[in-house]
Amino acid sequence: MPDIIEPRVLKGFRDYLPEAEIERKALIEILERVFRSFGFVPIDTPVLEYAEILLGKGGGETDKQVYRFADHGGRDVAMRFDLTVPFARFMAEHVDELYLPFRRYHMAKVWRGENTQRGRYREFMQCDFDIVGTDSDAADADIVLLIHDALTALDIGDFTVRINHRGLFNRFLAAIGAVDKSPAVLRAVDKLDKIGEAEVRKLLAAEIGEEGAAKVLEYIEPCPAFEEGLSRLERLAGGLNPDAMRLRAIFDAVNAAFSTAPTPPRGKLVLDPSITRGLDYYTGVVFETRLDAMPEIGSVCGGGRYDELASLYTTRRMPGVGAAIGLDRLLAALEAMGLSRRRAGYTDILILDLEEGFGPRYEAAAATFRRAGLCCEVFPERRKLAQQFVYAEKKGIPLALVLGGAEAAKGVFVVKDLRNRETFEMHSLDEAVTLIKGRLER
Amino acid sequence: MPDIIEPRVLKGFRDYLPEAEIERKALIEILERVFRSFGFVPIDTPVLEYAEILLGKGGGETDKQVYRFADHGGRDVAMRFDLTVPFARFMAEHVDELYLPFRRYHMAKVWRGENTQRGRYREFMQCDFDIVGTDSDAADADIVLLIHDALTALDIGDFTVRINHRGLFNRFLAAIGAVDKSPAVLRAVDKLDKIGEAEVRKLLAAEIGEEGAAKVLEYIEPCPAFEEGLSRLERLAGGLNPDAMRLRAIFDAVNAAFSTAPTPPRGKLVLDPSITRGLDYYTGVVFETRLDAMPEIGSVCGGGRYDELASLYTTRRMPGVGAAIGLDRLLAALEAMGLSRRRAGYTDILILDLEEGFGPRYEAAAATFRRAGLCCEVFPERRKLAQQFVYAEKKGIPLALVLGGAEAAKGVFVVKDLRNRETFEMHSLDEAVTLIKGRLER
Repeated sequence: MPDIIEPRVLKGFRDYLPEAEIERKALIEILERVFRSFGFVPIDTPVLEYAEILLGKGGGETDKQVYRFADHGGRDVAMRFDLTVPFARFMAEHVDELYLPFRRYHMAKVWRGENTQRGRYREFMQCDFDIVGTDSDAADADIVLLIHDALTALDIGDFTVRINHRGLFNRFLAAIGAVDKSPAVLRAVDKLDKIGEAEVRKLLAAEIGEEGAAKVLEYIEPCPAFEEGLSRLERLAGGLNPDAMRLRAIFDAVNAAFSTAPTPPRGKLVLDPSITRGLDYYTGVVFETRLDAMPEIGSVCGGGRYDELASLYTTRRMPGVGAAIGLDRLLAALEAMGLSRRRAGYTDILILDLEEGFGPRYEAAAATFRRAGLCCEVFPERRKLAQQFVYAEKKGIPLALVLGGAEAAKGVFVVKDLRNRETFEMHSLDEAVTLIKGRLER
Repeated sequence: MPDIIEPRVLKGFRDYLPEAEIERKALIEILERVFRSFGFVPIDTPVLEYAEILLGKGGGETDKQVYRFADHGGRDVAMRFDLTVPFARFMAEHVDELYLPFRRYHMAKVWRGENTQRGRYREFMQCDFDIVGTDSDAADADIVLLIHDALTALDIGDFTVRINHRGLFNRFLAAIGAVDKSPAVLRAVDKLDKIGEAEVRKLLAAEIGEEGAAKVLEYIEPCPAFEEGLSRLERLAGGLNPDAMRLRAIFDAVNAAFSTAPTPPRGKLVLDPSITRGLDYYTGVVFETRLDAMPEIGSVCGGGRYDELASLYTTRRMPGVGAAIGLDRLLAALEAMGLSRRRAGYTDILILDLEEGFGPRYEAAAATFRRAGLCCEVFPERRKLAQQFVYAEKKGIPLALVLGGAEAAKGVFVVKDLRNRETFEMHSLDEAVTLIKGRLER
């Protein structure tokens, strides 16, 4: 016998067993339906790209985490570490074959050789959606509404989308004479949830002094009412300006959409001047989304508006707005809230193997069931009945068809509900189909 | 301005633009539905694995094509080059958490640094399905029936599943005293389509002499009628035997399933003793599937039965049967046959942006349409009407909502069918929904 190789996966990687994969697919299917309902189209890009394309000519922080190597032709290649950079390259390359504004979604794996200590995985899925080629507030509103419809479709409880505008924040910083420190101030404010107000005050004071820090902390106070809060920010930022008007337009459009629903929306749109998003990339509105029942897991969907998607690869200006849904966080939240869609399989009915030579009958019954839209499988071996039931239980199959010699002699088909052991004697497969569909709805 | 990096992908890799990605997703969605209807469950495995796991301790032919490198921790890792090896590792690792027989499907990308001269890609999708943990003929029949239902659901015309049994072939080789040359003979016969009978005869003669070659060529002659053909093969193979009985059982089960359909099946199951599949891996039935209208593209779905899935990683015996669908070939065939499901997007109706300040009305209308199950998008900028129509055309959007100042003053919503420029004046959004759904069915 040859040596056995120990079956194992790399640290930071994982298999998806059927339950987990079915759950992930259910989530993805729901999200895709919502993306499509907003006119978004899917794209795909290669997992491997030129390292130069993914990392730019400089290289930087992300560099160290990237899986990068020389391919057979000696090319310096890397595995994608996000979906934004490949999208920028994609748009620069294909914009003339497409059209603008372009709405795309992309759900795919990315790889980062990160420290796995913090429960992070080195292979995980990202889910991005963007509208590029337009500066309009209608596109910003669409992204907020899409987030709303997506989380509502996932049926994950109430949630809050918190929105802010970096331009408005910068106007305020200009008004207090601190606009040159904008990046550092925004990054400090972004840490509010993580490190608390006292620490943020210290960071701010180091940049713009105690008085400036106090003003910034006043500016970022919560805005319980959108319109009132916005008026306050507008005042602090020096009066009427297009950034505040944009926030107002987004708020109005979102509320108009909400007002058409027969039931109250599951999500609230809240103005939150403390939302800045760390990335320098964003230039306009920014937003984050938290589940009301689980704020502690952080934002499950964040994003914002940027001026330049693809400036590394083209001189063509491509402003846009987009967001990313944190699939792993959502899955964890659903699990923690007892709302998980985990199931062991899709099979509605198992056809038990009870009688030598009945294979053709079993396959005929299975074909009839499938044609009626049921998911059906034939147990392929005449094992002990108890073993066949254990199989059904492990796979979460609710119903079984009992068709042995006795049933065939009587001309009946017995359907057994494995959840409560009730049995039903049917006189045709069509009759069985009707019964099965009724039982499945229970 | 910084230097621009030329946006491009690696040789042998490609982007999927929306039309191509929508088509691929449509295919995948149909296949998933069929897999699930047969009780198959999805799994996923990491793209990166230990090179030792993927390549075995020896290494070999595939080795040269594999993307293999040292990761940050100095581990010898590789990108998966098929879905079979990871599945074997997966089963060896997880069998105790699962159950047997286990039916799984896996559709995912794999990578091979192959020569791209022949139009091959270095990144492509595989689609595998297997039933492991059983020796039964019912499982073999299930795989054949699944192939039938999958190709029927894809609506790709008539097709032929050709089946054979390697065990039966070996019995015949034993009967003519050539069983020790079995691997070479099977590999030679596998080339029949590619190199023709004369060349195969030469290959065979070199192994088992002229007389043996003649006998083999007689054995592999077509079998126009299944039962007759099978009796002939059985005779040549030395009489009644379990392998022939298995083929008979599969044929009976498949026909029983076919017989329940109200219309004739799109696929035929044909006995073809010349099907051997090159891989040493197979030990029982083997099959290939060709489209009757396009036999020249080769098999779109092939597979077979094997004795040992995971012997590299476990001493536990795991026999099974499975097949792989060639997605790229199917896409090419659909394209060539004019049956492609290409479309530029999913949007049913575009809400034109015609009037300053109407954003909230547009979003309200869009929300109403989406709630009615329509895919709807709001054009986000007040561009010239002609430009908005060009956008709709590029994206293949059939309908538009015209709602400007004039319509609002009249209290109407105008729906325009962009395919024939008909317009319809509606008095409410609900009325518009009904009209839109009617137009979409045309």
